[in-house]
Order: sequence, then C-alpha cells, then structure tokens
Amino acid sequence: MAVIGTPPQLEPAKNTSNDHLVKSDDSQHPANLIPELCAKFWHLGWVTGTGGGASIRQDDLVYLAPSGVQKELMKPEDIYVLSLKAQTDPKQRIYLRSPPSFKPSQCTPLFLAAFNKRNAGCCIHTHSQWAVLITLLLEQSGAETDIFEINNIEQIKGFGRGCQKTGNLGYHDTLRIPVIENTPFEEDLTDSLEAAMDKYTDTYAVLVRRHGIYVWGETVHKAKTQCESLDYLFQLAVEMKKLSLPWLSNIA
Amino acid sequence: MAVIGTPPQLEPAKNTSNDHLVKSDDSQHPANLIPELCAKFWHLGWVTGTGGGASIRQDDLVYLAPSGVQKELMKPEDIYVLSLKAQTDPKQRIYLRSPPSFKPSQCTPLFLAAFNKRNAGCCIHTHSQWAVLITLLLEQSGAETDIFEINNIEQIKGFGRGCQKTGNLGYHDTLRIPVIENTPFEEDLTDSLEAAMDKYTDTYAVLVRRHGIYVWGETVHKAKTQCESLDYLFQLAVEMKKLSLPWLSNIA
Amino acid sequence: MAVIGTPPQLEPAKNTSNDHLVKSDDSQHPANLIPELCAKFWHLGWVTGTGGGASIRQDDLVYLAPSGVQKELMKPEDIYVLSLKAQTDPKQRIYLRSPPSFKPSQCTPLFLAAFNKRNAGCCIHTHSQWAVLITLLLEQSGAETDIFEINNIEQIKGFGRGCQKTGNLGYHDTLRIPVIENTPFEEDLTDSLEAAMDKYTDTYAVLVRRHGIYVWGETVHKAKTQCESLDYLFQLAVEMKKLSLPWLSNIA
Amino acid sequence: MAVIGTPPQLEPAKNTSNDHLVKSDDSQHPANLIPELCAKFWHLGWVTGTGGGASIRQDDLVYLAPSGVQKELMKPEDIYVLSLKAQTDPKQRIYLRSPPSFKPSQCTPLFLAAFNKRNAGCCIHTHSQWAVLITLLLEQSGAETDIFEINNIEQIKGFGRGCQKTGNLGYHDTLRIPVIENTPFEEDLTDSLEAAMDKYTDTYAVLVRRHGIYVWGETVHKAKTQCESLDYLFQLAVEMKKLSLPWLSNIA
Repeated sequence: MAVIGTPPQLEPAKNTSNDHLVKSDDSQHPANLIPELCAKFWHLGWVTGTGGGASIRQDDLVYLAPSGVQKELMKPEDIYVLSLKAQTDPKQRIYLRSPPSFKPSQCTPLFLAAFNKRNAGCCIHTHSQWAVLITLLLEQSGAETDIFEINNIEQIKGFGRGCQKTGNLGYHDTLRIPVIENTPFEEDLTDSLEAAMDKYTDTYAVLVRRHGIYVWGETVHKAKTQCESLDYLFQLAVEMKKLSLPWLSNIA
Repeated sequence: MAVIGTPPQLEPAKNTSNDHLVKSDDSQHPANLIPELCAKFWHLGWVTGTGGGASIRQDDLVYLAPSGVQKELMKPEDIYVLSLKAQTDPKQRIYLRSPPSFKPSQCTPLFLAAFNKRNAGCCIHTHSQWAVLITLLLEQSGAETDIFEINNIEQIKGFGRGCQKTGNLGYHDTLRIPVIENTPFEEDLTDSLEAAMDKYTDTYAVLVRRHGIYVWGETVHKAKTQCESLDYLFQLAVEMKKLSLPWLSNIA
Repeated sequence: MAVIGTPPQLEPAKNTSNDHLVKSDDSQHPANLIPELCAKFWHLGWVTGTGGGASIRQDDLVYLAPSGVQKELMKPEDIYVLSLKAQTDPKQRIYLRSPPSFKPSQCTPLFLAAFNKRNAGCCIHTHSQWAVLITLLLEQSGAETDIFEINNIEQIKGFGRGCQKTGNLGYHDTLRIPVIENTPFEEDLTDSLEAAMDKYTDTYAVLVRRHGIYVWGETVHKAKTQCESLDYLFQLAVEMKKLSLPWLSNIA
Repeated sequence: MAVIGTPPQLEPAKNTSNDHLVKSDDSQHPANLIPELCAKFWHLGWVTGTGGGASIRQDDLVYLAPSGVQKELMKPEDIYVLSLKAQTDPKQRIYLRSPPSFKPSQCTPLFLAAFNKRNAGCCIHTHSQWAVLITLLLEQSGAETDIFEINNIEQIKGFGRGCQKTGNLGYHDTLRIPVIENTPFEEDLTDSLEAAMDKYTDTYAVLVRRHGIYVWGETVHKAKTQCESLDYLFQLAVEMKKLSLPWLSNIA
C-alpha cells in the first residue's frame, strides 16, 4: 500500500513536512475531531481491538484514521491526509501527509467511495456486535433480499430520506439498510459497496455480513448521529428477536 | 415552527440579546443543568442520535434543549427560553431567547403540558430501549388496557404517590404507567399526552408506544430520579420477561 | 426519624457545628470515601434513583450517606455521623453531625447491624438488578431453602471464609448467600437481617427479595470488592440461567 | 510466596530501595502503563473484585500488578519488579522491587510462562464473564476437544497467525483458543497452561474453565488489542448461542 509514482506537486509518502495539515487549535478541525470521535466509539464498543475507523472530508482534503491504532488512544499526529481529486488510480494512493509510524487503513477506498459517490463529509466504520448479529439473523432467516428492514420505531426519524431528497424518514417509513458479503481483504469490499450505493440510492449506510457497517453523512454531525441511531435500532432489533417481536409491523 | 406575531414586550425569535438568561456561574442554573443532564442521559443510552431531550421550568421561565443537538455536546448557549404565561396559542411559540443556530424541539408542547397541567419543574423525554421494548411487549400481550404495571419491587418506592398526594408509592403498591400511541409528528402527541394526564391523575410519566417515555417531577431532582427508577424497572421487566418471571405478583 | 432525647454530651440533631467530622484533606477519610464509592456505584447501576447506600465505621464513629440523595452527586458535607456506642435505643438515633438538608437513611439500622453483630468496617447496600433477578429466580424455582448457592467459579475466591475464620473461600467451595423477605419499611428488615446473620454465621452478605443486597466487610476494601465479586456472580448466574447452565456442579 | 535465598546481586524482598524501577515520567513506562491498563480493564468488567491482572516484560525486567489490589485504583508504586533470568527455581521468586504493602500475584508463574515460552512482552489475565460463559457452554456441549472455535467473523483478523508466523489470521481462518481446567490454586495452572502452549503452538491465549483467560502478545499493544478482540468474539458467541446462530460456518 506504499505510494508509487508520487506526482511532483505532492509531498511523498511518509513526508511529515505537511504536519500543519493536522495541527490546529480548533476543536472542530478534522484532525482533532477524528481522535475525539474514535475515543467515543471505543467506549461504545464499536472499534474494539483496532477494528473500525472514521474519515472526514473537508472540500478536497480527506482525513483518515490509520490502520492498527488503539482507537481510544489516537492523536491528531496519527492522521493521514490525502487529496480527493488526486486519487485517480485506485491502486495508487497519494498521501499529502502521513504519520511517522502506522500504515494506511484498508478502509480507505471504502471511505473514498462515500466521498466520491455520495459527496459525504464523513464516513464511519464500526464492528458493532449488534450490526454483526443483524447480518447473522438475516442470513439465518434465509430472506430472499439481503436487506435489514424495520418500521414504526421513532428512532427511524434519525435518518435522512435520501441523498437527493430533503428531510428525514417518517415514523411509518421503513428504514432499509442493504447487506453486502464480506471479503478476506477489506479493500475488496469496494466494488460491492459501490454497487449497493448504486442499487439503494437513498441509503446512508451499508451493512457488511459478519463484519460491521459503513455509515456516512453530509457532515460529521449527520454521519455520527445516523451511526448512533442505526446502532440503537440494531440493538433494539436483536432484543426484539429474543422476545419474538417482529421488526416490521402494519400500523397505519 | 418560527415565531409569528411576537408581542412587543418580548424579544423576537432568534434574538440573542437575552443571552443573560442562559449565562450563569451557578451550576444549578437551568442553562447549566440541562447540558449536564443531557450528557449524562447520552451515556445512559437515553438520548442517542439527538433523540430525546429535557426541559426545566423556573417560575415562569421555561428552559429547553434544542432540536437536533448531540446531547453529550450541548452547551448553555444552545438553550431556548420562553415564558410559560405568554404561550397562549399552541401554534405560536414565543421565545425570550433563541440560540443562534438550531431549531426548537418538537417536544416543546409536551414539556409545556407537564408544566401547565402538573405544575412540574422539570420534564425529561428519553428514547430508552427498555421503555420501547415494554411498549412492544404490552402490544404483543394483547392486554385490554394500555398500561404498564409492576408491583412488589423495592425500586417502586422511588415514585411519588401522585400530584395531589404526599409521599411515595409503597413496596406493595402497583406502579402504573399509561401508554399512548405514537404519531408521525411529535407535536401531535400533545393531545393524547394531556388526555393520559387527565385519565391517570397520579402518574408522573407516560410511555409512548415504539418511541420512548416522558417523565416529569416537581423538581429536577424528582424528575431525574423518577426517570432513573423507571428505566431501572423497565430493564428489569424486560429481563423478567426473558426469564418467564411475571411483572405482577400477589404478596401480602 | 427525628432525634428524641439527645444526651447532653452529644450535639443535637441538625447541629452542623461538628462539620469538622466530615472535613478532611485525606482522600481515605470516610466522608471523602463514601461520595467516591457512591458515584462509582451509580455508574455500575447499583444505586439508581437514590436507591441503595453505603456506610463506613471507624472505631466508634459511623459515617452514613443520607436518604434521597443522587448518589453520583454526593458530597462530604451530605454525610451523617453517629456514635456506635451511643445507640442504645433502636428507635432513637443520636447523630453527632447532620447535614443541613436531607433526612437520615432508612438503611441506618441495617448498617448498624453489620457493625454491631459482625464488627464490620463498611457496609454497602445496592439495588443491583442482578441481585433482584437472583431472588426472583429462587422464588420461581420453589426451592425449599432461601439461599443462593454457586460453586466451581473462580470469582468465589473473592469472598472471606467467614467472620471467625481466616482466609477466603476456595474454588470448589459453595458460596451461600441467604435471602430474606422484603418489608414495606426498610427499617423493618432489621430483625430478619439480624436473624440471617445469626443463622448463617459465615456470610458477608444477605439478599433481600425483590429489593437488592447488603454486603459488608472488615474494611472498605473488603466490603467493596466482595460486593463487586457478588454482583459479578449474580450477573453470571442470570446469564447461566438463560443458557440452561446449572449454578451448582460436581467437580472434584 | 516469600522470597527464600535472595542471591547477593539482588535486592531482598520488600526492599523498596529500588523504587526507581517504578518511577518514571514516561507514560509508556511499564509501571505507568500497568495501572492505566488495569483501570481500563476494571471499567470493562474484566478485573472485578481484585480478580485478574496484567504484566509487562521489558528485556529482562518483569513488571507485575500485585495480588488483592482494586484494579481501578492501582498506582505505579504498587508494582512488583523481578528479573526474568534470575528466576531459576519456580518455588523461589526473587523480586528486585516489592511494594511496601500487598502480596505477589498468584498469576506470576503464568505470566512468566508467556514470557519464557513465547517471548511475550505483555500478558493479561481477565475474569471476563463472556470468557467464563464460553468455557461453560463448551462443557455443556460435551465436545470432544476442549477448544473454542469460531470462523468467518471479521474481528478474527485481530489475531496473529502464530508465534513463528508472520501476519494475522484471515477472515475465513478458524480462530482456536484451547481450554484448560481450573485448579484450586492459581499457581497450579502453570503446568497445564504450559502444556497448552506446547500443544497449540500458534495460540496467543488460553481459556481457563470457570475462571477466565490468559492472553499475551509481543507488545503491550498486541496483548491488549488481542484481549479486546477475543472478548468481543466471546460476547458475540454467547449472543449467537442465545439466538441459535452457529459459531462455525462454511463460507468459501
């Protein structure tokens, strides 16, 4: 995953002379927000054992948590930065700024998909156990379509109606989150993630079977609160399953 | 939900010149207490993904958390303030102080119902999963009356006996929390919430099916501790259900 | 529960001139330890909604959390202090120091039982849901003896072998915690708590049906760690029940 | 467990003149890391009631949490230090530095096994309830081999492929964690722990029936993140069991 053929106008890989990109006194700067978010996610059990991650896009700049970092201990200087425009070859990642240690995250092309295809401002990846259990329960049910569906729960209103639509889902609307199959190498999920984005044009999230979930939003606020609402619904749905309560109901 | 027809003696909507109403060095000031409570509630999973909220009334002034805020990040300057007396038209909300960003909470008329009809000093709204599961279990049971009932559990003593009564419920008393049906727009819950308050004159809380709960009390202390005790009982009751333990028992 | 007939050598009730009894720079002083412990217990869900409490005895002085306090917000100045020797009449409590607000805890005579009958240095009372569920499961099982029993779990070694015995329980030993029936008024538990102490001379804890548990120890360290180990075992035992795993097993 | 026959070049037991071994301004010093880790583990429920522990090896020096300490309250000055080379007789432990109070941990020979046999840099012992439940479920299942097996879950990739192998397990690989039987005295686990290490040459962890788990790694980072990933998988597996989802599946 080393940088091959760095273009002249960009800093080479592992060049830390662009450290100014991750140094800011503004608590809302992406390099400060990502560690804060990741620490919060660790306490929620979403990024256990270095799993999961988060990325923020600000105009052309993409900020990424590195691979293999303990998420509750992350620091701004651990952050990768790349230019969205400059990423023309998916095999060849060009970093404007790299941390002195660490490797880039295998999630990178998946985060970029959310930025490129959905114009997202933030994308979160968790290994939430509730998300994993939902994908297992769907597999067990032998359902024809690979999609989690729930309706008539207030928390559904925490989701946007869709990328080209305004407003949020309503209480009676059915929230639908597609499921894609996991692959041995996380980068290889990119094609099926993009296919799910193409097929389910309104979704802000894609479940990955036996793995977790990718959730995005126009802003950090939206990605994070949608991720929270989804996890709430997954946990609720698992408990509903234990209590023989159906996920879909017919309430006018 | 914008302010229409602001009376001359009040500041117009989005007028932040009344910022003194939310600035205080006193940790017990409502504008300081609401963020502290909401952060605590977020950690309890009650106000996930901007859901839920809290409001405090001090004499005529009502302090409200805004809509769509990440509850663990809320600040005193995010608080709305309105005058209880001045709210004569339910469609026309008059704010003494509005935060520069954010929108008013859809819960506002529900909080006002607790203040107006019960003279409450604080009202809390949570999306607790235990509360939601209780309403689903009651629906599943096909019970004739829409009410959660539990007795012979010590924690029941954490509840007041009723608005016109002194003292708290006893160990052998049955705690009864009515359930109302959810509506697509939260404001539309107001009528049925008020009807439930009228029907169950002693209750300090109303469950909302597939949504959550509203809990109030004469003081912040009472609203908060009653909300905690209720959530404890809901969680216990869900676990009891899983273990085939009945919620009501006959102990002299 | 007001003080009747204060003896001359003692400060009258609500006399706060003995504030020096609860003011200390030593973090290990009981008036500093009780709030720290109670905040910790609140986060563990043991003292929800002002339920539960804790008391420390240092020689003749007994320090007590008051009634009705939010346990995560407690301060040293909220603490009651009484002299153990001076408590001759169970109906007549004599406080050396009372907080300006608050009422004495109904748990007081139960804490005193641990100090008087067992020479304990600390006693903790929780409303832990796991403890309550254990008492409900025992009731459901129709067992002849009212006692929780578990063996062959390493955590059992966290318990002392008994008051007149040295050392801790072994892995193969059976931990036995008696259960007493709850009463409408907490003070009325005193007789049956003392009877259970007399009958089960080795126990450091008594479960109260549908209510919670009292746990004590020679020191704060022992009471607190025994309380933790017990709660661990109760939670484990509830999960074992869900998974049809027996609490008692026959391993040589 | 007192020190017998201290060799001349080493400080005698309880000699605290080597306090410099546990005093450092470097947050990454083992004497600072162990308390930080243990506090974190306490909040995860892994080291409840003084159970469990952690040890770090740096070259020849081994740093150990003491026995019987409240893990969330541990301080650098509570740490034992010994020389790995100097431990020739398993019955005779030689400490370079001992804390003024506390006793050495019974886990010591088990931690040393990880350092000696696997060249580990850190070893963690937890009483996690999920680990205990897994050992109980395996016992219940009457499986012929005493080993926990799970595959096709992304989090499996959080584990190293083995001590003499590079890289981590893949998504389709089966993670295997052997189970050994518990013994009344923790030190007596040493032989069977070492036997399990010999038999399962690739494992980084050994479950102890009805007790907990030992997890190690080349570094603190690896031991801690592997321990987290394992606990995630144990919790997931218990939930899978409740929902009748098999731990092993056949996905190409």
